[in-house]
Amino acid sequence: MARTAIYAGSFDPVTLGHLDVIKRGARLFDRLVVAVGNNPGKRYLFELEERQRFVREAVGDSCPNVEVHAFRGLLVDAAARLDADVVLRGLRALSDFDIEFRNGLANRSLTGIETFFLLADPALIYVSSSIVREIALHGGDTSHLVPSVVVEPLRRVYAEGAAR
Amino acid sequence: MARTAIYAGSFDPVTLGHLDVIKRGARLFDRLVVAVGNNPGKRYLFELEERQRFVREAVGDSCPNVEVHAFRGLLVDAAARLDADVVLRGLRALSDFDIEFRNGLANRSLTGIETFFLLADPALIYVSSSIVREIALHGGDTSHLVPSVVVEPLRRVYAEGAAR
Amino acid sequence: MARTAIYAGSFDPVTLGHLDVIKRGARLFDRLVVAVGNNPGKRYLFELEERQRFVREAVGDSCPNVEVHAFRGLLVDAAARLDADVVLRGLRALSDFDIEFRNGLANRSLTGIETFFLLADPALIYVSSSIVREIALHGGDTSHLVPSVVVEPLRRVYAEGAAR
Amino acid sequence: MARTAIYAGSFDPVTLGHLDVIKRGARLFDRLVVAVGNNPGKRYLFELEERQRFVREAVGDSCPNVEVHAFRGLLVDAAARLDADVVLRGLRALSDFDIEFRNGLANRSLTGIETFFLLADPALIYVSSSIVREIALHGGDTSHLVPSVVVEPLRRVYAEGAAR
Amino acid sequence: MARTAIYAGSFDPVTLGHLDVIKRGARLFDRLVVAVGNNPGKRYLFELEERQRFVREAVGDSCPNVEVHAFRGLLVDAAARLDADVVLRGLRALSDFDIEFRNGLANRSLTGIETFFLLADPALIYVSSSIVREIALHGGDTSHLVPSVVVEPLRRVYAEGAAR
Amino acid sequence: MARTAIYAGSFDPVTLGHLDVIKRGARLFDRLVVAVGNNPGKRYLFELEERQRFVREAVGDSCPNVEVHAFRGLLVDAAARLDADVVLRGLRALSDFDIEFRNGLANRSLTGIETFFLLADPALIYVSSSIVREIALHGGDTSHLVPSVVVEPLRRVYAEGAAR
Repeated sequence: MARTAIYAGSFDPVTLGHLDVIKRGARLFDRLVVAVGNNPGKRYLFELEERQRFVREAVGDSCPNVEVHAFRGLLVDAAARLDADVVLRGLRALSDFDIEFRNGLANRSLTGIETFFLLADPALIYVSSSIVREIALHGGDTSHLVPSVVVEPLRRVYAEGAAR
Repeated sequence: MARTAIYAGSFDPVTLGHLDVIKRGARLFDRLVVAVGNNPGKRYLFELEERQRFVREAVGDSCPNVEVHAFRGLLVDAAARLDADVVLRGLRALSDFDIEFRNGLANRSLTGIETFFLLADPALIYVSSSIVREIALHGGDTSHLVPSVVVEPLRRVYAEGAAR
Repeated sequence: MARTAIYAGSFDPVTLGHLDVIKRGARLFDRLVVAVGNNPGKRYLFELEERQRFVREAVGDSCPNVEVHAFRGLLVDAAARLDADVVLRGLRALSDFDIEFRNGLANRSLTGIETFFLLADPALIYVSSSIVREIALHGGDTSHLVPSVVVEPLRRVYAEGAAR
Repeated sequence: MARTAIYAGSFDPVTLGHLDVIKRGARLFDRLVVAVGNNPGKRYLFELEERQRFVREAVGDSCPNVEVHAFRGLLVDAAARLDADVVLRGLRALSDFDIEFRNGLANRSLTGIETFFLLADPALIYVSSSIVREIALHGGDTSHLVPSVVVEPLRRVYAEGAAR
Repeated sequence: MARTAIYAGSFDPVTLGHLDVIKRGARLFDRLVVAVGNNPGKRYLFELEERQRFVREAVGDSCPNVEVHAFRGLLVDAAARLDADVVLRGLRALSDFDIEFRNGLANRSLTGIETFFLLADPALIYVSSSIVREIALHGGDTSHLVPSVVVEPLRRVYAEGAAR
Repeated sequence: MARTAIYAGSFDPVTLGHLDVIKRGARLFDRLVVAVGNNPGKRYLFELEERQRFVREAVGDSCPNVEVHAFRGLLVDAAARLDADVVLRGLRALSDFDIEFRNGLANRSLTGIETFFLLADPALIYVSSSIVREIALHGGDTSHLVPSVVVEPLRRVYAEGAAR
């Protein structure tokens, strides 16, 4: 039986959409592993440690069965290493599905792992890390898009002239 | 935690696509309830009892944690009555998603029940009960589309001139 | 310049999704004509007069520039008769778009009338008259889906055994 | 090698969109069989003979390698009987694709026959037999949507009060 | 009421598809602001001044209520600065919609501004600035894709070996 | 009549999905030209010669009417130079279609060349060169995704630390 799910992404930064999936996933599995991706060739706005901390602080004490880990490489390898039975994904809208479908089938072809999809909160359908970064880059308000712990660091990182 | 899933449909008749979802779902939940819909205003090719029997025989002894029930009315009511924690759905292709999205959100709005989606076997992406009925109506071969227990009854029901 | 928009549909019954489009449309046009369709060959759950009254009462005094009319036949003819410059439509989700695209282009090919699309409130993305009827048919709660004026008549019409 | 293609549909009535696919298909294959469907359980606006005649007259002398036939039952059986190597389909828009995908794969699963898709003329993307019937039902002009041979019969059939 | 619309993009270069939206938008609003984006981190084929000039010359005297401005940063800020009530967008095809949906909702979440969508001319459904650049890069003819004022500069910029 | 089709791509590297389209295309046309793209500004994992050799060896002796060529620039120019009558494309899933639609129409607008689409094998729906590279980069097994001739070179190129 599926007891542990892995929910992976860049979380650069974590959004209210991610948080919604995490909280609902935590009610459906014994254990939910949030895996924060960190791949050598990729540039991130926030360092791995910050991205993990934002997830941890946003989740807070509300979901004791949520663990936050880092991962690099293939998701299926991270799942095996972290004892996850299934992959958890949130679906925001139709356009997501195609990529999700391909990734889910590719993962299944590698180790047989299944992907479970949850419907994202439709009120958050337009929220993504890239839209958050775009708005913050131009000095817009992001407090309705990200957990409160992220708002100030996000403002600061662009004020300091960080490239996206 | 989610322990029991409900997988609902008309199953008129059950296809190899349905069977694939049932078998994979049975590995992921403690208990999987297959709920065969039977609504007054709707015409079916096979009687409720036959549709249930086809599912039972197709599943056979391979998945002892699968139960087959009938239901009418709202899925959320059947879920409550049959002690199911979540709804299970298979996704075949992009076009499915939109209806699934709406139904899933409507169900969540009624009782808070979540819907889990599994990726259907892509090799069966084109299989549906309606395509099966269309082929059988015109005397085509359906043995690659439905469980073996369904093939002969399906041939016979059209040979006897049953209207779809 | 576009001054009057026509927003047409069956409104059988009007939903909170429709109401959201009407209220936002009323802020964008000098005059908004809500056209309640009533075609001979089609069966409706509620009579034309009721469907119009539900829209009027749901809108209430909040939008004095909204008028509610009946129409049958082609939308482009109703637009001409009711002095509407453009067609207004709400888009709920990706799957809507294709039908909307075809209808909008067909209307433009007939009289040159343009269609304006507004984005529906994403939190109401799953709400449609047919889902409302399905839930009400089986005795479910619809108070989060339709204006309050509709809730009780909707319950009663199915309690009295009305066919959908 | 593929020499003969079959292009099937109800053609109730043939539209300028169909005609575009026929003319382009005729340039790409040695022989193009237009198969006009006629199934017992289905109601048509025009009789089979009329629907075939409209296609023939619309094509005229421009494509001598086009043949018009009737068919009932499965498309794959018609293809075998009429010596067609492949199925030809026109794609109008994204939403078409999903049904086409399923039908194409189902046909391939039955006899191995391949389906070729051509891109429909985008200017005709919104034209379909059902939109044509809807406009004609309400007395609208269809002369920009159907071949000229269809305009007058279409007007007459609704003027005579024919049900759709 | 909505009197001024803002139509924003890179216009690198303006295409016949853009021009179609501008001309139709100009008939529907008292004032149409074309906002040509110019963001620091982004590389353009043509300089801002050229991109603005191409739009102005392509529009010509046909639409006196069209103004061409530059903008950088968030669209909602440009809209406020240029006194635009609504955002205007053209929809080319289904795949556009998802990004448009997200952007439109994100903009609404920031300042409450609504987005109006018009249906693009279907005959131009495949035209985009990037396809135009791709064709011009390889010396292909673009005169059926862009306003005549753009054809020669586009040819020249690639002949001079400009990187895309 | 269409006798020669051109099937173009980067083939970096060729996958079992490509191979499936090539083999089926070879049965439908007198001559099938596989055109391996090689554009100056683009970085490839494998050199042009390798990418061509992989296709040739994967096809082997099974399809004597398949030729493998290189091309740069516009596909329509390569088609003219290589005497191809039509463009052949495989469709994997709904999301492909939109780009394919635009490219196909753009090509038709340039020289009148038609694009034929075949349905890809649904069991390979998730296979793409980029997913293959992603898996190989992280040391995953690709033997179920690419022809056997590709497996070892793919492993080696990443083991040697080649950048993607």
